[in-house]
Amino acid sequence: MSVNKLAHRKASQTLKLVDEAGQPIAGKDVTFQQTNHQFLFGCGIFEAIEVANKSVPEERLTFLENQLDRFLDVFNSATLPFYWALFEPEKGKPRTNELKTAAQWLKARNVSVKGHPLCWHTLTAPWLLNMSNEEILQAQFARIEREVSDFKGVIDTWDVINEVVIMPIFNQYDNGITRISKDLSRVGIIKEMFEKTREFNPNATLLLNDFNTSINYEILIDGCLNAGVQIDAIGIQSHQHQGYWGREKLEEVLDRFSSFGLPIHFTENTLTSGHLMPPEIVDLNDYQIQEWPSTPEFEERQAKEIEEMYSILFQHPLVEAVTTWNFSDHNAWLGAPAGLLRKDNSPKPAYDVLKKLIKEDWHTHVSQTTDENGIVSLEGFLGEYDLLCEDKKASFKLEGQGDRFLDPVLELTIK
Amino acid sequence: MSVNKLAHRKASQTLKLVDEAGQPIAGKDVTFQQTNHQFLFGCGIFEAIEVANKSVPEERLTFLENQLDRFLDVFNSATLPFYWALFEPEKGKPRTNELKTAAQWLKARNVSVKGHPLCWHTLTAPWLLNMSNEEILQAQFARIEREVSDFKGVIDTWDVINEVVIMPIFNQYDNGITRISKDLSRVGIIKEMFEKTREFNPNATLLLNDFNTSINYEILIDGCLNAGVQIDAIGIQSHQHQGYWGREKLEEVLDRFSSFGLPIHFTENTLTSGHLMPPEIVDLNDYQIQEWPSTPEFEERQAKEIEEMYSILFQHPLVEAVTTWNFSDHNAWLGAPAGLLRKDNSPKPAYDVLKKLIKEDWHTHVSQTTDENGIVSLEGFLGEYDLLCEDKKASFKLEGQGDRFLDPVLELTIK
Repeated sequence: MSVNKLAHRKASQTLKLVDEAGQPIAGKDVTFQQTNHQFLFGCGIFEAIEVANKSVPEERLTFLENQLDRFLDVFNSATLPFYWALFEPEKGKPRTNELKTAAQWLKARNVSVKGHPLCWHTLTAPWLLNMSNEEILQAQFARIEREVSDFKGVIDTWDVINEVVIMPIFNQYDNGITRISKDLSRVGIIKEMFEKTREFNPNATLLLNDFNTSINYEILIDGCLNAGVQIDAIGIQSHQHQGYWGREKLEEVLDRFSSFGLPIHFTENTLTSGHLMPPEIVDLNDYQIQEWPSTPEFEERQAKEIEEMYSILFQHPLVEAVTTWNFSDHNAWLGAPAGLLRKDNSPKPAYDVLKKLIKEDWHTHVSQTTDENGIVSLEGFLGEYDLLCEDKKASFKLEGQGDRFLDPVLELTIK
Repeated sequence: MSVNKLAHRKASQTLKLVDEAGQPIAGKDVTFQQTNHQFLFGCGIFEAIEVANKSVPEERLTFLENQLDRFLDVFNSATLPFYWALFEPEKGKPRTNELKTAAQWLKARNVSVKGHPLCWHTLTAPWLLNMSNEEILQAQFARIEREVSDFKGVIDTWDVINEVVIMPIFNQYDNGITRISKDLSRVGIIKEMFEKTREFNPNATLLLNDFNTSINYEILIDGCLNAGVQIDAIGIQSHQHQGYWGREKLEEVLDRFSSFGLPIHFTENTLTSGHLMPPEIVDLNDYQIQEWPSTPEFEERQAKEIEEMYSILFQHPLVEAVTTWNFSDHNAWLGAPAGLLRKDNSPKPAYDVLKKLIKEDWHTHVSQTTDENGIVSLEGFLGEYDLLCEDKKASFKLEGQGDRFLDPVLELTIK
């Protein structure tokens, strides 16, 4: 991969190192160690709830802690579940404490957390069905107010509303959210939910998210933007149980959704290490099988696909986040071998490939020597850094030129 | 057809008839003769230009006048062409006078005229290609200002913008309008064009028009409405060269597009009296054949389909207009036998069926006798009426209850 294609992921910075007395640290070897990426490499990691709350028997806890260790080794972003049916199965008894413990646990480990989703017709609260449409809308608003307020500062990124293209015509079963989406219309419900979320966390990053990548979703986004909805990032799902999209489709989707000039998040990526789901299945949920094994042959295919797809996404200037939906095959959606780990927590080749990309190829770890004035230069991938000098260190952020005016020289005090 | 299904097309009115001295006209036979429909029964009738301007040799003029007579016998609405490439083939030399003569000729014959279209990527001015995108946009604005101002009072209904779903991805040939639609986005270009049109004729009836009746068009309309675009009527094309949609699809389309609560116009309806275009043709323009004959068998089919389709549309409370795209097979689009007349101007069964519906079944012509106070009651189809009493008459409009507060008794002076 040419360096040039990743120029937008890097920055140059001149630093002047001084000691605590303000004297230049001259002629010293220093090491720049990247400690975090600006880019969000994420997973759906719902197991963090059990680990952080220690709410499972010890054997299972150890197993999950092992899983989380592998996650923390590579990733800096996590999606936590806020499905209303699971978050508040009984009206008035939300699982706020458990989820907050999990989010704080992740945040303490330098992992950015996204809540998914605030409004969706699937897995919504069944008790909405007893309400009038106006009551459902007010309950949905109240839920947004509660979650967004309760988690502010810990979760500042939200999938505000999920799968709106299908929402008003979803007819597999009655549910409260489809009911109100018919009243409000697609753009209308998006506008309402974004405004309510923004009201209680004005600086949050708010996403619209959909599996529909057709012209429908383009026109929907266009309508929202023209209607004044402030979408901070376009969320694109890419569950590829039926086969990898391939470079051509991926670039075509990127090209179309880039036209808005907004950041793009690949919010739910799946590439399995098993046989492909047959193409005639329309709703992925309809494919129910006993066993969906991960095999060595397909693990190699998965690794190649993961490498190509992540490389294309990391090269694209508008993509800011990629989330592998299932970190492990254990409890993966549809029983698919969709994880980067096998059911026994052993890493698949795709895990190793991704770890190499994130922690080596797209990662900066260099040594330099300061000049007589304590000056040293870094060119590196955007993110957070430790600068190590003998047994002392300093931390700083390397940000993109577009993000702010960079001081020509950043003065760092080493202690 | 039950009367009940057409209740929304009718109204009741009590009238008090007085003479010029203000005395009640008691005990007299009177006849109510409907002279026009509120509902718009239209055709594309571009031949009105040649007839009104008498711009063709006499033999052809006589032929076209005969055609127009048959049109005027049945219809009260006409679509005239404003395709930019044809209206202003040379920059600065628009065919304003010719078109105005035609529009005035129609208006004088009690025909409402719609201009089609102000903005479209097909048949747009080829000389836009030499301009920058900003210049194209300004030229498009200037064209709207010119046409809408020049025709105000004669043409107060416009297809403002045509086929926007495909507009920015239309790739058969380069054109100025596709270029600017990419800059502005779909909802953006609609908003701009509607606002510009509204500026120069605030009370006009402005339509969005598309052949795409999928969810794409629904989401586009939803986006426009949420973005504050004032769409007065949703235009739906229905060129059925590949076969009649049938009741089920027609009702399904009506159902989906009714959800906005806006008036619906079927702007371009085609049902041929020939063989069907093969289903594998995607762009109807790709089907080019030498001869596409009208046959007796298919003329019967066309008549049945016309009868069913118009009946469904007339029954639907939100439909306010239906336009048969080609009144005659002569010069019909794609050479199809799409007209209500054959090439020799003879009426097909579909013409007779439609004439019966419009002029008999859905038409009011009744006689009553006034009481001692000159009071008489009418229940009739909405529209314009002459009330005839011996050799005198009066004219009035019968409007829907929803349109305005009806005086319980309308006093009419007969002279």
